[in-house]
Amino acid sequence: MRCRVCRGPAIIDIRRHNANFCAEHFLKLCRDQVAKAIGEFDMISPGERVLVAVSGGKDSLALWDLLLDLGHDTDGLYLGLGIGDYSDRSHRYARDFADRRGAKLVEIDLPGDYGYDVAGGAKAARRVPCSACGLSKRHLFDRAALDGGYDVVATGHNLDDEAAVLFGNVLRWHTEYLGRQVPVLPGANGFPRKVKPLVRLGERETAAYCVVRGIDYIVEECPMALGNKHLGYKDALNAIEVTSPGSKHDFYFGFLSRASARFRVDAAADSQDLHPCPSCGAPTTAESCAFCRLVARAGGHHPVAVELSPTRPAPSVTRP
Amino acid sequence: MRCRVCRGPAIIDIRRHNANFCAEHFLKLCRDQVAKAIGEFDMISPGERVLVAVSGGKDSLALWDLLLDLGHDTDGLYLGLGIGDYSDRSHRYARDFADRRGAKLVEIDLPGDYGYDVAGGAKAARRVPCSACGLSKRHLFDRAALDGGYDVVATGHNLDDEAAVLFGNVLRWHTEYLGRQVPVLPGANGFPRKVKPLVRLGERETAAYCVVRGIDYIVEECPMALGNKHLGYKDALNAIEVTSPGSKHDFYFGFLSRASARFRVDAAADSQDLHPCPSCGAPTTAESCAFCRLVARAGGHHPVAVELSPTRPAPSVTRP
Repeated sequence: MRCRVCRGPAIIDIRRHNANFCAEHFLKLCRDQVAKAIGEFDMISPGERVLVAVSGGKDSLALWDLLLDLGHDTDGLYLGLGIGDYSDRSHRYARDFADRRGAKLVEIDLPGDYGYDVAGGAKAARRVPCSACGLSKRHLFDRAALDGGYDVVATGHNLDDEAAVLFGNVLRWHTEYLGRQVPVLPGANGFPRKVKPLVRLGERETAAYCVVRGIDYIVEECPMALGNKHLGYKDALNAIEVTSPGSKHDFYFGFLSRASARFRVDAAADSQDLHPCPSCGAPTTAESCAFCRLVARAGGHHPVAVELSPTRPAPSVTRP
Repeated sequence: MRCRVCRGPAIIDIRRHNANFCAEHFLKLCRDQVAKAIGEFDMISPGERVLVAVSGGKDSLALWDLLLDLGHDTDGLYLGLGIGDYSDRSHRYARDFADRRGAKLVEIDLPGDYGYDVAGGAKAARRVPCSACGLSKRHLFDRAALDGGYDVVATGHNLDDEAAVLFGNVLRWHTEYLGRQVPVLPGANGFPRKVKPLVRLGERETAAYCVVRGIDYIVEECPMALGNKHLGYKDALNAIEVTSPGSKHDFYFGFLSRASARFRVDAAADSQDLHPCPSCGAPTTAESCAFCRLVARAGGHHPVAVELSPTRPAPSVTRP
């Protein structure tokens, strides 16, 4: 097995590229694919400040590492979800990476700052854990980005993630979600721009990237996610990828180029009635926003400082 | 396990309906679902003559039986594909059913009438067997319907089939196929109307229907289809259906109600340049139609009678 570029011994085969790569040229491939995604979808302009949502997993740490190496001005944001030992260990991986790279990690703790954890929030709101978690993350990433003056939030969604989400959305023909499933959501209506620079890399590649780069990350799936539908969709697509390499790529990028625009009108209709949540100011179409309703149901609270002072202090920050 | 309707002992559970049925009410359910599909999509009007494409498998024989019981004026059409013993046995099941029901079966034999079989056609045309087979079937069903003065061709595609085809089409975002994947293709441009009255029944139900009705059918999958992509798509959707009953139904019917129209323009564009094939008269966008090209490559011929006489004799018919 030889590297496609230099013919030296290869360390990884990527079937959808029908090619093998040595360590050096595999890292170059990853950087090139991320740079290509950023350029092709106008994700980040030179000089913009990027907040990377960091979970301590392979994708978000690979993303942060790649963005730093590509010269982007990035800080990380870690959100403690209160999932016991899993959260503690994830947090450690995120902090260790930030320390090693001399990068700034913003930290928010759901139980400490907001008085609830994912399990409690899910139970109170009668949502599955992944739903309560996703809602909390989206809200707090957006808010931290706007409060911190960042131009853009970057998340570690990779090609497998996006293909699986797309599969879930087409299985139910959630047309408004389909209209919104793009690698760049422009900032508007009180939302920051959100980008997914890893859409051209599969999760096997982000894992290999971390191994080659010596980045330690939490390997286990989140214990609350086990058996969720998203993982079932991944399994289904993986089975197809085995017999037809490149299927996931074609599914996702074919959607973007030939179908996505047909659903945009549904997403736009959904955002017409946005107004600021009276409680937290986040854009919402309901009386109060879904996050504030979740916090209220879970018996949580907004950070105490917010209620005491009009100039809210920045969240706690680990400086290297 | 009790019947939802009469509370008698049930013989089948249908998880996506969240219900069990006794034999009598299961048959009624099947008839009702077919009648509902026919009505909802305007498939067949009273008095129209229907040609049912009959393979000898569970779906097409169940369909023919159901259409007869619903009072439709139907003949069957059996196409011998030259797949050795598999074709011989399929043929026998189709003939036995026709005899038992006192129904008319039109018969065409690919090797005898056209001088090639599916394996040879596939090899010559460098297509996978299912592609050469599908192309031949579509052409010959259309032609037999037009020649025989039928108003509509009915095929036994069930919900599993349609969901799997849809999955294949969205995986590659074949937008022109998506625009054409409807349970009724109106007759136009030299094509007869084509309908799929089984779209509301799964393949487990059509199999159970045949068992309950005492209809013998060929149980094995076609040996040429083993390992094809379509079966892989079925496996993937089956895995999802197990954890989320109703997924296939929602996928297919959600597509029809919320997405299909968005792709219609692509299908329409594709049919703008149709003209009659100079060799056989079938509508085509190319110089000669795909079927005539397949026949030529496979070293086959059109039925001798066609070339000798302007009034082509009807294909051979088994009369009960």
